[in-house]
Amino acid sequence: MKKREMKVTPWEVSGEIDYEKLIKEFGVSKIDDKILDRIKRHTKDLHFMLRRKVFFAHRDLNWILDEYEKGKKFFLYTGCGPSGPIHLGHLGTWMFTKWLQDKFGVELWFQFTDDEKFLFKDKSYEEIQKWTYENMLDVIALGFDSKKTHFLIDTKHISLLYPTAIKIAKKINFSTVKAAFGFGNDRNIGEIFFTSIQAAPAVIPSVLKGRNIPCLIPLAIDQDPHFRVARDVYPKLGFYKPAIIHSMFLPPLTGVSGKMSSSEANIAIITTDSPKEVEQKIKKYAFSGGKDNTEEHRKKGGNPEVDVSFQYLRMLFEPDDAKLKKIEQDYRSGKMLTSELKEYLIKKINAFLSEHQKKREKAKKQINEFIYKEK
Amino acid sequence: MKKREMKVTPWEVSGEIDYEKLIKEFGVSKIDDKILDRIKRHTKDLHFMLRRKVFFAHRDLNWILDEYEKGKKFFLYTGCGPSGPIHLGHLGTWMFTKWLQDKFGVELWFQFTDDEKFLFKDKSYEEIQKWTYENMLDVIALGFDSKKTHFLIDTKHISLLYPTAIKIAKKINFSTVKAAFGFGNDRNIGEIFFTSIQAAPAVIPSVLKGRNIPCLIPLAIDQDPHFRVARDVYPKLGFYKPAIIHSMFLPPLTGVSGKMSSSEANIAIITTDSPKEVEQKIKKYAFSGGKDNTEEHRKKGGNPEVDVSFQYLRMLFEPDDAKLKKIEQDYRSGKMLTSELKEYLIKKINAFLSEHQKKREKAKKQINEFIYKEK
Repeated sequence: MKKREMKVTPWEVSGEIDYEKLIKEFGVSKIDDKILDRIKRHTKDLHFMLRRKVFFAHRDLNWILDEYEKGKKFFLYTGCGPSGPIHLGHLGTWMFTKWLQDKFGVELWFQFTDDEKFLFKDKSYEEIQKWTYENMLDVIALGFDSKKTHFLIDTKHISLLYPTAIKIAKKINFSTVKAAFGFGNDRNIGEIFFTSIQAAPAVIPSVLKGRNIPCLIPLAIDQDPHFRVARDVYPKLGFYKPAIIHSMFLPPLTGVSGKMSSSEANIAIITTDSPKEVEQKIKKYAFSGGKDNTEEHRKKGGNPEVDVSFQYLRMLFEPDDAKLKKIEQDYRSGKMLTSELKEYLIKKINAFLSEHQKKREKAKKQINEFIYKEK
Repeated sequence: MKKREMKVTPWEVSGEIDYEKLIKEFGVSKIDDKILDRIKRHTKDLHFMLRRKVFFAHRDLNWILDEYEKGKKFFLYTGCGPSGPIHLGHLGTWMFTKWLQDKFGVELWFQFTDDEKFLFKDKSYEEIQKWTYENMLDVIALGFDSKKTHFLIDTKHISLLYPTAIKIAKKINFSTVKAAFGFGNDRNIGEIFFTSIQAAPAVIPSVLKGRNIPCLIPLAIDQDPHFRVARDVYPKLGFYKPAIIHSMFLPPLTGVSGKMSSSEANIAIITTDSPKEVEQKIKKYAFSGGKDNTEEHRKKGGNPEVDVSFQYLRMLFEPDDAKLKKIEQDYRSGKMLTSELKEYLIKKINAFLSEHQKKREKAKKQINEFIYKEK
């Protein structure tokens, strides 16, 4: 079978992802052991997503650490495009962002790009507003510090964002967004303008404080093109270029290419799934690296690299390296069957979701603490 | 000398303007005596800009009158792009708009497109803000009813405008703005998006009231392309198409082609000019339709059609038809000299500006009554 060509833009990830190639194409730097050691000096331990290089690339991370070591704290900026339920693929970046917030004791600005999703999706304004509310609950449930976390909802906070967005927009032309995002002339004029709205929060705290504050953006690498375009612009407006730390994509249940998408919600695991639904989805859809029958599996063993259940443990649900190593060895040797691996993952996911769903209910009363209030 | 090719877009008016050709190209209707009679039934008299067909074209004006006659009041929407001082060329549309407000007793929404001017001009954000303030003073000085007039300043009222603007933007693609405005790929992404911000106020009162209210837009015809594009969109969002009434351009001092522009402020007459400055500008620059010397002028007479001073009287400063007729006859016959015509105009302009400048000072205390307050 011919490999599907890799495509990675903020709105489409498809084909088999070649991360080495992405590093070259996007011009980002690899996360190496040297920079991990440097982070560890401040955080004492390393998040498993760093140890395992799920966060695999960066821009200007050494600069952020230089500034931090000089006593200049950065702030974090990440976001969510609210067009459907939150699925497991969203969670990694946000969990890691929470870890960064805790370890460095920094502010987080969290953008909900409701305008983007309205402009790019065939969905009504009202439906997007519903998902914005629902998705905020999931973000809050992950345990961010309400005193240090500020939600920006584009259509609600546009009076804060717009003056900065048009300053950015003035320095980006259609040729540039055409090249960066692969847009044609058939794109609507809101889609074309949008990148300036996503670029704004990286400097909004500096605008509000009237002084330059370094910014670190944790994101999945498909969002990098927004900042690749905007990073040339920020210094022209007198701002720092933000630093970025890039994660890989959680693969979809059906196989280790592309990224999990909420448009395929019926086969993605979403945060409101019941234990039964999780079990059914994993058992039915999770692509297996095991052999066709037990006898052969016992003899030849499975392939954890392509096994979606194993990858979910590695990227999201088994922080313990020793346990993960044991599972990998047992699965590779044939000692552990696909059904056992899936059982292990199902338990892990359901334990997580059981807690998450409780916190998600509580979050309904916390929303106002998180939404940024303009002074 | 070869005629310069006519170009009419919201950002450039040049060449010799052929209004008949514009009517065909833009697909608008001519103001005829039948529709003037219909307006007169409601307004008792006709504004001289209607009698003289300075407002020469329209879209859907009969529909606005149909609705009005059924008891459904329209609102007016016009605006100002604040990038420099207000000159005489701006005033006609606004004076006529005030007349409409008075005669029909209707609300006026007045947009200051500070975002547009920042995006399209090589000027700083701060300079545009300064001009926004200055231009508001001129608009207030024209005597609009503060109880029925609402200023929208794009960057200040963006939270009101943006949700509607993105609904409009979603239905306009780059090919369309490329064709309507002559944009190339080198245009910045804010310029490309902007038309959706100018289109929004035509339905904002309907959004606020939750019911469809007819809108009439008085404008100079160079602004028509914004609405030509947006009029296809409004019904898709459940709104009426706005009606439009189009004026001709006040010619620049130097000759009856193009339009007066504040970018040439040194030779345009601006509202803060002193009587001396007005006199000097008219005497030095106002293109004359008279003959080269007095003797020849007395014999052959002047040509009021190309005489800028006469045109300013016709379009702006001599509402009295009998007086204008007399001047035209005397000038054409050679009885009135260019110097006398200019003297007459200078007196008229200075009488107007003397009053205007007083009201402009008072306006500084009235600004807050005019700026729309979000509920």
